[in-house]
Amino acid sequence: MTKLYQEAAAVMETYSDLDAARRFLQWDQETLMPAGAIKERSERLAGFDSLQHRILTSESTRELIARIRTRLGEFDDDERPVLSEFIRRFDDKVKLPETLVAETARAQSYAGEAWKKARAANSFASFAPHLQKLLDLKIEAAECYGYEEHRLDALINLYERGLTVAQIKPVFSRLKEHFPRLLAKVQSFPSRPDNTMLRQPYDKDTQLQHAQAVIRDLGFNFDRGRVDLSAHPFCTHFAHSDVRLTTRIDANDARTCMYSLMHEAGHGMYEQGIDERLFRTLASGGTSMGIHESQSLFWEDIIGRSREFWHWAFPRFQEYFPGQTAGSSAEDIYRAVNTIEPSLIRIDADELTYHMHIILRFEMEVEMISRQLDVDDVPAMWNAKMEEYLGVKPDADANGCLQDVHWSFGGFGYFPTYSLGKLYAAMMWNQIQIDIPPVRDHIREGKFAPILAWLREKVHRYGRTRNSSQIINDICGRDLSEADFVSYIDARIDDVYGN
Amino acid sequence: MTKLYQEAAAVMETYSDLDAARRFLQWDQETLMPAGAIKERSERLAGFDSLQHRILTSESTRELIARIRTRLGEFDDDERPVLSEFIRRFDDKVKLPETLVAETARAQSYAGEAWKKARAANSFASFAPHLQKLLDLKIEAAECYGYEEHRLDALINLYERGLTVAQIKPVFSRLKEHFPRLLAKVQSFPSRPDNTMLRQPYDKDTQLQHAQAVIRDLGFNFDRGRVDLSAHPFCTHFAHSDVRLTTRIDANDARTCMYSLMHEAGHGMYEQGIDERLFRTLASGGTSMGIHESQSLFWEDIIGRSREFWHWAFPRFQEYFPGQTAGSSAEDIYRAVNTIEPSLIRIDADELTYHMHIILRFEMEVEMISRQLDVDDVPAMWNAKMEEYLGVKPDADANGCLQDVHWSFGGFGYFPTYSLGKLYAAMMWNQIQIDIPPVRDHIREGKFAPILAWLREKVHRYGRTRNSSQIINDICGRDLSEADFVSYIDARIDDVYGN
Repeated sequence: MTKLYQEAAAVMETYSDLDAARRFLQWDQETLMPAGAIKERSERLAGFDSLQHRILTSESTRELIARIRTRLGEFDDDERPVLSEFIRRFDDKVKLPETLVAETARAQSYAGEAWKKARAANSFASFAPHLQKLLDLKIEAAECYGYEEHRLDALINLYERGLTVAQIKPVFSRLKEHFPRLLAKVQSFPSRPDNTMLRQPYDKDTQLQHAQAVIRDLGFNFDRGRVDLSAHPFCTHFAHSDVRLTTRIDANDARTCMYSLMHEAGHGMYEQGIDERLFRTLASGGTSMGIHESQSLFWEDIIGRSREFWHWAFPRFQEYFPGQTAGSSAEDIYRAVNTIEPSLIRIDADELTYHMHIILRFEMEVEMISRQLDVDDVPAMWNAKMEEYLGVKPDADANGCLQDVHWSFGGFGYFPTYSLGKLYAAMMWNQIQIDIPPVRDHIREGKFAPILAWLREKVHRYGRTRNSSQIINDICGRDLSEADFVSYIDARIDDVYGN
Repeated sequence: MTKLYQEAAAVMETYSDLDAARRFLQWDQETLMPAGAIKERSERLAGFDSLQHRILTSESTRELIARIRTRLGEFDDDERPVLSEFIRRFDDKVKLPETLVAETARAQSYAGEAWKKARAANSFASFAPHLQKLLDLKIEAAECYGYEEHRLDALINLYERGLTVAQIKPVFSRLKEHFPRLLAKVQSFPSRPDNTMLRQPYDKDTQLQHAQAVIRDLGFNFDRGRVDLSAHPFCTHFAHSDVRLTTRIDANDARTCMYSLMHEAGHGMYEQGIDERLFRTLASGGTSMGIHESQSLFWEDIIGRSREFWHWAFPRFQEYFPGQTAGSSAEDIYRAVNTIEPSLIRIDADELTYHMHIILRFEMEVEMISRQLDVDDVPAMWNAKMEEYLGVKPDADANGCLQDVHWSFGGFGYFPTYSLGKLYAAMMWNQIQIDIPPVRDHIREGKFAPILAWLREKVHRYGRTRNSSQIINDICGRDLSEADFVSYIDARIDDVYGN
């Protein structure tokens, strides 16, 4: 390790420690913090933000980055990608003027409150000026970051480094083309899965115990992580050896706790699997939102909604819930967790229709960021697209364009990563079936270790030293594509509805 | 607020945020952290330590402190004590050479492990070299800090600013003189309180619910704090509005959870009561270990073991534990929680004999730090003093000089604060009875708010802007004394044993 690398490592360590502290306070705020602590907690969080900013943009860091930049070619293959990430993070920080950062933080804070009220009151008009403000600020930010083709590229880049509108568009448009055929097929089958077995009273403690037992078997390491409760499930990490999941429990629906925990465990196993040598560098953590989401959706959907999984999981589910499952079979529950039906709310959508929710948002963001769509026209376009793509129309903006939190913090460019995650997951799944021929038998036997080992080897360990494009190309030998997902969902529809 | 004060405030804010982060990670480590996270967690903690050290000893802070020092008289009465605390903290940091700090940290780490093993194996000899090393390092530290009379003063000063061996010695020696008479009195009474009612199976969850209900009634604000479980009860805080208590539960003894939580709630109410304007300054937090302990012992012992308290608390205790309390009265439990009996272990000792455990340690520390007592002679002196003061003799060093963790981290000068806390508490209690004449009736009615308000007004709000001597003098018009405690315990002995 060179002296120059050591200098960079020292800065990264401090930055990483502060990042962990910030995530810690946020995790605690969602899980345990007493209600009255919110004001002082916010001051602490702002303190960490500001200290991190000072460290990354200090004169000595600037000077260090300049020296590294000119000598990047001299570092070895372990050090170079870590330092590249350091430079990228620095560049992202310094490209925005401090006044813009401060103004954006203020606007986000107001918009967040306004969004909550607007949604409750079903009043898009009261949210519109805040959306306009954030749109203006994010357009300004995109101009500061810079981009080659489309302004939204600069913002997508924050979540999915290197991916562009030009790459996403053809993938989404082909996905959109397949959609009517697939939905028509679902609707053409006479049978409808019955999920009433899952929608009845389930003891909350038992649900949590069951869900934890499931993710332990999938491979989530409880010696290096834990589970708590929060209003909105999430995954965070303070170290590779300290990954925190949260879940929530619906006393009248067995799916909520189980599937949200499988989802978060997918994120968590990614974080647990990152090479320990990357600890306290800026190349630790998942490489992109899309790849992170590929891991959560892989375990939640591709594994967790498969016939093989339920063949193994159902007898265990029965042990926890003998009353509720009396008279039901593994086949019943497999069908019940695979209902496909167009609906208004993204987060409740099934595996197929989910993508249309995302495509709608992406198309609107592209137009908003390029100033082709006026904020005032957002509800009308939303409703028109919902009707066109899914055949359902919101009865109120609260169930339409006001349903998501993302625009209220100016998170334009974030939505596509949800769909990308699923497309990546389907691509990986096809490759896993080639690399591990008996993988379906493994799942049927509850033997998940070979799958996790494959993901560790191909995805997890790299952290941010490889971007999503490198990862998916190394695995599949090709770029992002919708084809794997389409064939996956096509087969599942036949399997669930056609039998 | 002057510009100079603002500069100081900015440094203190950062320092305080890092302090909170460190305490957060430590709290989590004791309560929730997954076992496998310990290594990476230690690296994070060391990172915060080092960053705090760098900030407090940086060239810009040095220069800032120098400017403040020359102009301290110009600040107003709110600012001056805060800045004095800033200067003191800075001085404490810079007086020790970095090599000594690092060597001490290393020695503490080794000694901690060695102590655990030595205690388990009952082998003082294997701990002796570590004790010698820490003693040498702490003597060196005391010389760096400086002192006027006794070398131990420099170390006591870390926990109880300004207090000296010369002040403690006469107080302890008078306390020691009273002790034989008081113990003889206990032993002269024919009746022995029976505490078997408290030592039987008690449901753990119910114990925790009961204990939390009790401290809520005492005044611990659950909107600004919470309770978790840990192996060793403690109190920590991340803000005045975020105070965390922990407790432990013995399934076969109702005292452990209840009294440890009342104790920690005493610490916690102190932290909750500090003036919010001191948040993120170095004058936030309790002013000294002794005053902190006065608050915990006030609620645990002076209130929590009083007849008036149990008059109010027993019917409620009965509601939680109807089976265990059948046939018992408030008087029975009052007597049961006031058993006095010499024993080997400090943390299990009663209100009277506890002080002899402390005096023994203090006397030995005075001799060790002045190199009059060889480390090898520690066990013999310990055992001789135990027999002389308490009439009991350890059957093994594990129950003798190896029982406490304190010397294993070189915490010489810490022990006296435990006794001082109780002496302060008794002094405050005498004054409260004067200031709030119906206070005993209040307690009998479960009306604790006037007592808490008194403590808020006289002690809590000041944080570290007044030291223990100022606080106790302002309350009682005199210095630390053992007299109040002696009359308090004398009366309680008569009341419990003589009736």
